[in-house]
Amino acid sequence: MIRIALDLMGGDRAPEEIKAGALMYVEAISKAKNVRKDIHLSLVGTPQTLKDLENHPLSSYWTLVSADDYLPMDIKPTEALRRKGSSMYIASQLLKEKKVDALVSAGNTGALLSCATLVVGRLQGIDRPALAVAVPNINDFTVLIDAGANVDVKYEWLLQFAAMGVEYAKIMGKSNPKIGLLNVGTEENKGTDREKQAYALLKEKLGDMFYGNIEGSDINVGTVDVVVTDGFSGNIAMKTMEGASKLFSTIIKKEAKKSIDGMLGILIFARTLNKMKKTLDPRSYGGTFFLGVDGVVVKAHGNSDRVAFMNAIRVAAKGVEGRLVENLKDRLKGWE
Amino acid sequence: MIRIALDLMGGDRAPEEIKAGALMYVEAISKAKNVRKDIHLSLVGTPQTLKDLENHPLSSYWTLVSADDYLPMDIKPTEALRRKGSSMYIASQLLKEKKVDALVSAGNTGALLSCATLVVGRLQGIDRPALAVAVPNINDFTVLIDAGANVDVKYEWLLQFAAMGVEYAKIMGKSNPKIGLLNVGTEENKGTDREKQAYALLKEKLGDMFYGNIEGSDINVGTVDVVVTDGFSGNIAMKTMEGASKLFSTIIKKEAKKSIDGMLGILIFARTLNKMKKTLDPRSYGGTFFLGVDGVVVKAHGNSDRVAFMNAIRVAAKGVEGRLVENLKDRLKGWE
Repeated sequence: MIRIALDLMGGDRAPEEIKAGALMYVEAISKAKNVRKDIHLSLVGTPQTLKDLENHPLSSYWTLVSADDYLPMDIKPTEALRRKGSSMYIASQLLKEKKVDALVSAGNTGALLSCATLVVGRLQGIDRPALAVAVPNINDFTVLIDAGANVDVKYEWLLQFAAMGVEYAKIMGKSNPKIGLLNVGTEENKGTDREKQAYALLKEKLGDMFYGNIEGSDINVGTVDVVVTDGFSGNIAMKTMEGASKLFSTIIKKEAKKSIDGMLGILIFARTLNKMKKTLDPRSYGGTFFLGVDGVVVKAHGNSDRVAFMNAIRVAAKGVEGRLVENLKDRLKGWE
Repeated sequence: MIRIALDLMGGDRAPEEIKAGALMYVEAISKAKNVRKDIHLSLVGTPQTLKDLENHPLSSYWTLVSADDYLPMDIKPTEALRRKGSSMYIASQLLKEKKVDALVSAGNTGALLSCATLVVGRLQGIDRPALAVAVPNINDFTVLIDAGANVDVKYEWLLQFAAMGVEYAKIMGKSNPKIGLLNVGTEENKGTDREKQAYALLKEKLGDMFYGNIEGSDINVGTVDVVVTDGFSGNIAMKTMEGASKLFSTIIKKEAKKSIDGMLGILIFARTLNKMKKTLDPRSYGGTFFLGVDGVVVKAHGNSDRVAFMNAIRVAAKGVEGRLVENLKDRLKGWE
């Protein structure tokens, strides 16, 4: 049984779109052939939000968990820990108590990181949990970790991030992932002291899995499967891609409007451009794993619509099915 | 008179393409109407390289400066300072001795930074010179500084980088540039201690010119005119754009090949895509300024062809004409 708690109240479009995403997921599961049907959701929300889910034809797929409170999107992480009646806190507690295997929320990132770290709890051998995202590359995707959870990072933590990234890449289908350290050049002596120390440590512990230093230009090219970096650089890299993506689509539209062949081209080419946009859309990858805690925690984009949230649930289910947390525990034990 | 020293021996395609770029520049100047013709180049290269330039019809535009040595592309910065007979070192010395106003090289970046800092010399009030690049945004360009010269950066230096970036933006035509601090969120308290301290300092010294924190996604969108950051994050942002650009063009080509309408579209759309590629090509912006030293220093891309090198010379001439160094000196004095 794959048991997932959903925070129905988190996200810019909560609860409507989040609830709709949960329903879409269940409908898809109930109809699909050749998929695991032993899935059970804990839907955590205000009584008002849960009302029409009680006597729903698909209600055997879920348990309703009532929460009196929910966290606004601009909440301070410290305050999140005090509001124990919130949907996010209650969902975290379900994970802590092993009543579920995974938790998905589109709520405030800092609040979710706090709940995951301090309510669910860190794994042994992990100093700082980290955010891992799958960003598109030429062939498929590259795991970027830390994508923004920790801005001040010690070199030893980068090895822990690497371990998390490897397990993530594995459940996403990469049997023998290559790990690169994000740096300002490929030579061994590049970067700050932290990068130099991390390089030596990664080389020692990861052996052949460690590719060496990589540069920003390698991320979307897919030189490696896992890009390890601190949450400051990782966040900047991830968001720079987002900005570049906006620039590209704007230029295409602008240029197309300048000439007849451009306009004709964009009309004929529309299907291709839409596919491209979809490939580059972070929402098509669903959620972001928050790794290093004792349970599967998926952060859905704050702006998630129903499709994005459904994908985030799928990602969480994949994490449970692939035994992400257990595998990570084993890897960390091997390094003790 | 605008006097520019060119290192003919630096770059992956030196000396042929570099020399050709210098010739292209001079030919363009000699033919063009309504441009300044009082331009004089000091062409620094081996006697072999300079040979056919002696009795050239355009030779009134240049002085030939013979160098016995030149620096290979993989040279160590420290070694660069020892090889005083190299074309790069000699060109730097010309700038130091005020025999020229600017220096352009496509040679090893570290070597050029060393020569610029230690041969040409820093400006008073500058702790660390920095690399500034103009990256494309939706409307025109954004100045990114530091793009990779300094990986370990103190918060006070970020103010100096801001000063350099502002003067760069001004000579590129932005009369009232807005400055943003690259961070992991827009709120004042985001980032590491360094970002928090830099935020306060930038706010105090720059006043209304300071926009506040910006994120990676703002760079190519053009939220601000100048993006200030350390050379580690700046390099990663710049190179991530490069990788994203490769991903985009690869996806377009791949998708187009999958369908008849895609293929037809890409044929019709070819002109637009080429324009787009050109807009995003860092070479179309020519060179990168190395700011904070007592003279205009332009780093051309290591892989520069003749067009790229010609553009780098143009950028240097713009720097001299716009009194980049003098304006920066004035701004720094105002803060003493």
